[in-house]
Amino acid sequence: MESFHLVSREYKPEDTVVTVGEVKIGGGHRAYIAGPCSVEDEKQIREIAEGIKGAAHILRGGAFKPRTSPYSFQGLGEAGLRLLKEAGQQVGLPVVTEVVSEQEVELVAGYVDMLQIGARNMQNYALLKKVGAQSKPVLLKRGLAATIEEFLLSAEYILAAGNSQVVLCERGIRTFSGSPTRNTLDLSAVPILRHLTHLPVIVDPSHGTGLWNLVEPLSKAALAAGAHGLMIEVHNHPQEALSDGPQSLKPEKFRMLAGELNALAQFLDEQSAGGKAWKV
Amino acid sequence: MESFHLVSREYKPEDTVVTVGEVKIGGGHRAYIAGPCSVEDEKQIREIAEGIKGAAHILRGGAFKPRTSPYSFQGLGEAGLRLLKEAGQQVGLPVVTEVVSEQEVELVAGYVDMLQIGARNMQNYALLKKVGAQSKPVLLKRGLAATIEEFLLSAEYILAAGNSQVVLCERGIRTFSGSPTRNTLDLSAVPILRHLTHLPVIVDPSHGTGLWNLVEPLSKAALAAGAHGLMIEVHNHPQEALSDGPQSLKPEKFRMLAGELNALAQFLDEQSAGGKAWKV
Amino acid sequence: MESFHLVSREYKPEDTVVTVGEVKIGGGHRAYIAGPCSVEDEKQIREIAEGIKGAAHILRGGAFKPRTSPYSFQGLGEAGLRLLKEAGQQVGLPVVTEVVSEQEVELVAGYVDMLQIGARNMQNYALLKKVGAQSKPVLLKRGLAATIEEFLLSAEYILAAGNSQVVLCERGIRTFSGSPTRNTLDLSAVPILRHLTHLPVIVDPSHGTGLWNLVEPLSKAALAAGAHGLMIEVHNHPQEALSDGPQSLKPEKFRMLAGELNALAQFLDEQSAGGKAWKV
Amino acid sequence: MESFHLVSREYKPEDTVVTVGEVKIGGGHRAYIAGPCSVEDEKQIREIAEGIKGAAHILRGGAFKPRTSPYSFQGLGEAGLRLLKEAGQQVGLPVVTEVVSEQEVELVAGYVDMLQIGARNMQNYALLKKVGAQSKPVLLKRGLAATIEEFLLSAEYILAAGNSQVVLCERGIRTFSGSPTRNTLDLSAVPILRHLTHLPVIVDPSHGTGLWNLVEPLSKAALAAGAHGLMIEVHNHPQEALSDGPQSLKPEKFRMLAGELNALAQFLDEQSAGGKAWKV
Repeated sequence: MESFHLVSREYKPEDTVVTVGEVKIGGGHRAYIAGPCSVEDEKQIREIAEGIKGAAHILRGGAFKPRTSPYSFQGLGEAGLRLLKEAGQQVGLPVVTEVVSEQEVELVAGYVDMLQIGARNMQNYALLKKVGAQSKPVLLKRGLAATIEEFLLSAEYILAAGNSQVVLCERGIRTFSGSPTRNTLDLSAVPILRHLTHLPVIVDPSHGTGLWNLVEPLSKAALAAGAHGLMIEVHNHPQEALSDGPQSLKPEKFRMLAGELNALAQFLDEQSAGGKAWKV
Repeated sequence: MESFHLVSREYKPEDTVVTVGEVKIGGGHRAYIAGPCSVEDEKQIREIAEGIKGAAHILRGGAFKPRTSPYSFQGLGEAGLRLLKEAGQQVGLPVVTEVVSEQEVELVAGYVDMLQIGARNMQNYALLKKVGAQSKPVLLKRGLAATIEEFLLSAEYILAAGNSQVVLCERGIRTFSGSPTRNTLDLSAVPILRHLTHLPVIVDPSHGTGLWNLVEPLSKAALAAGAHGLMIEVHNHPQEALSDGPQSLKPEKFRMLAGELNALAQFLDEQSAGGKAWKV
Repeated sequence: MESFHLVSREYKPEDTVVTVGEVKIGGGHRAYIAGPCSVEDEKQIREIAEGIKGAAHILRGGAFKPRTSPYSFQGLGEAGLRLLKEAGQQVGLPVVTEVVSEQEVELVAGYVDMLQIGARNMQNYALLKKVGAQSKPVLLKRGLAATIEEFLLSAEYILAAGNSQVVLCERGIRTFSGSPTRNTLDLSAVPILRHLTHLPVIVDPSHGTGLWNLVEPLSKAALAAGAHGLMIEVHNHPQEALSDGPQSLKPEKFRMLAGELNALAQFLDEQSAGGKAWKV
Repeated sequence: MESFHLVSREYKPEDTVVTVGEVKIGGGHRAYIAGPCSVEDEKQIREIAEGIKGAAHILRGGAFKPRTSPYSFQGLGEAGLRLLKEAGQQVGLPVVTEVVSEQEVELVAGYVDMLQIGARNMQNYALLKKVGAQSKPVLLKRGLAATIEEFLLSAEYILAAGNSQVVLCERGIRTFSGSPTRNTLDLSAVPILRHLTHLPVIVDPSHGTGLWNLVEPLSKAALAAGAHGLMIEVHNHPQEALSDGPQSLKPEKFRMLAGELNALAQFLDEQSAGGKAWKV
């Protein structure tokens, strides 16, 4: 592999813990990020925020959406940021949203607790340098065709620019087997990344599969593979969502899933504590 | 999807249970298949059989090896079959081995309890028809570039020829991200297959990754994703193995892993029993 | 690259010329193989044979078809071989057909002038050894997900078994970009193979794209890339074909294309003769 | 396919001709873009410019380089733009360079005749909108894992923002068959794009393969497939290049290749004029 440096276990052996608001991710801390693909209106984001309260740790919602077509819904922009922030305050959750333009980094950082770099921009180095030069933590999604090395080198851009609060997110890669899933969730990336880097690693099974009924088994699998958390799309009316409805859970399903994930995580932690002796 | 029929949930809603010797796979039954890539000599296969006894349910070992190069070790042939059978009898485990030629199906079936069709032969329809026309259960591995639909239609060939005792095995697909893993283990295939077919679904994390230290996290992830079992390469001297050494566990590690997997499986079953209400 | 030997330029620097009936492929000789995906009945294959006479060098037609579904048309079997042979004799063209079973190699070789190994069987080593042990020339198609090295090692199996009359055929690989083409035709494989091996290299743009209107530009591109010939699907009534209709040319279009390809080949040969000096 | 509109043949049936300085690309006009990966110093870019004069139509050279690692050479920045512009003026060629940041679009557009959007930024929509809102023509490279539809929708962003002077460039996609080529050049994209869009389509065989000795056969193949031009990396001292040396031609080789390509293009045009009758 090419020379990533600041992100490597060699440079920093112990796990990095990233702090978003008062939420910790990494090391012994797991977190669930939940919310809609897009902030659509005040009622929608507030209902969803209420629906995930107590089960999720961070509220997500897109205000600036990178869409394949220029004619698709592009998000509410700054109005969406404001609604997201207010919904987060209302339920006491920090918020994360995607930033898609160098020129909007400051604007977005003014409203949210964590900045997301989407898969399409994983190698938008100008944008990586910008989010590296500000102080909010960054959620970096793996590009659709990015190798592990390229993923880590993109994180390296952010650390090299001064920001070491970076969470990595596996979200499915593009393979031949598109159908019936949108992408192929690469869970082997989780233990590989955890071996190579000290940064926290989470998984997005919603984008990784594109089908809501795969979210439960693959969320559990992600935790079993060693993920520090999950990013799950939740919508109060998935059938009417302006984007990504088919891969969204309803709030009540998300809460039940979170309960099961908490129990599984505890089981895995106990097993891991007991089994440490024989592991590498 | 194209019309697979006999393998579909529509045709047969309840899970098929496949019986190998006295071992059951499918429905509520999980099984671990373990052993070396190749049977190398009597001492090797007997030591490994002893090493996995009590932890594995089925002993594997290759006698006819499909190798990319005609100059690589091709297996011990019938002598290997005999050693495998004897090692299985010695420890009381049924055995499985790969068959690579239509003309050897009867020979191989005479020695083993289950016939494996390897990834390279997943669309060797002449061979599928042959194993479909005999009575031993079949372990069908997914081809390197096979879609879910193609995988199920290959199983359909076996069922259409008269043999409904088929276990499906996800073992990694070929994607751009070859390095550092040999293939990309597609765990999303597990819940998708379980939704579409009544046949049991297991996972081979050894071939799926090619790296022994990924076997533990991905075995756990496979169970969490809903797999009915695992196929894991075990060798007493991985560094000296004639094939696939780097992805093999030593027997003692395998036993410890099996213990953890059993506990995890029990946890998942209990959780599943409790959570059934809210699932699809 | 792994050690292929008999197929390498190091082992045999000069181009191999493969002889099919009286047709030569390789070195300075180019050939076009044309005909339907499947032999359907006497009238069909005879009409197509008449239609391509004078433009094609070898007649193709499937009698044993490897189909993804066991319920799809599987070919006419031996009756199809007989019809193909008679149609070839009628127009004075040698014939090629696919063999899909070890146990049918002798049967098929008794009827045709060249045996084809299809993409799905590229790593069916039992079958490769069988066609390597008989004396008819072999057309080896590249597997859907086969690397250049794996492709050459499969040819090596045939040469190692005693048959050095092998033609390699690039026919499209499986990539993410399925739609709108069936596969991605990898024309870079042509100069790479010609550099590494002395065996002739041809291209199948019909399967490579799955769309008949891409056959013309990509046939020309294949010749420009250095191919020794083309394999093109031709059907007298593409809309009614039992298989692969959408990628088939009508006979009159094929004849016009062949005329253009001949002129292009002559141009390329003259240019190559003039430009040799500066090339590697 | 999703709804691209302004770029479609339905919207504008006749070929668009893009004008770069006084050079035309598209319709009946072909053009070769040549030059180094990176502008390294005054002597280098001037020597290369002199070397390609009379054979190339547009001079390329990178000043802002998007590099996978933050520690790789990132280009000379504005100093590189100045050197490129001066070298172009010296030999009377228009120049093209990549822009990697929204905030540098105006700066770059002030120096060059055409702006390039690299593969990594093909879905950097903020950047696409910016280059769409200025008046210099744009060279849009296909992303490593971009479908034809996504590629066209990215061009649609530029046209929707007001700039219809866009040239599309196929430059290789990421597939399993990485080795021995860097990417898989998808020449089927050329006729497909020409069918779907009125925009000119060119091919970059240097990045598409990563190996200089494949540039000649694949450049010819690209023209035969219908490309309106080529983008070829040329360096005066490939062994010492700061980036992409192994895929660069020396100037004298490029001139000889251009001569052959001109003759081939003329042949193809004449054949096409003669053969129009039977084509779709």
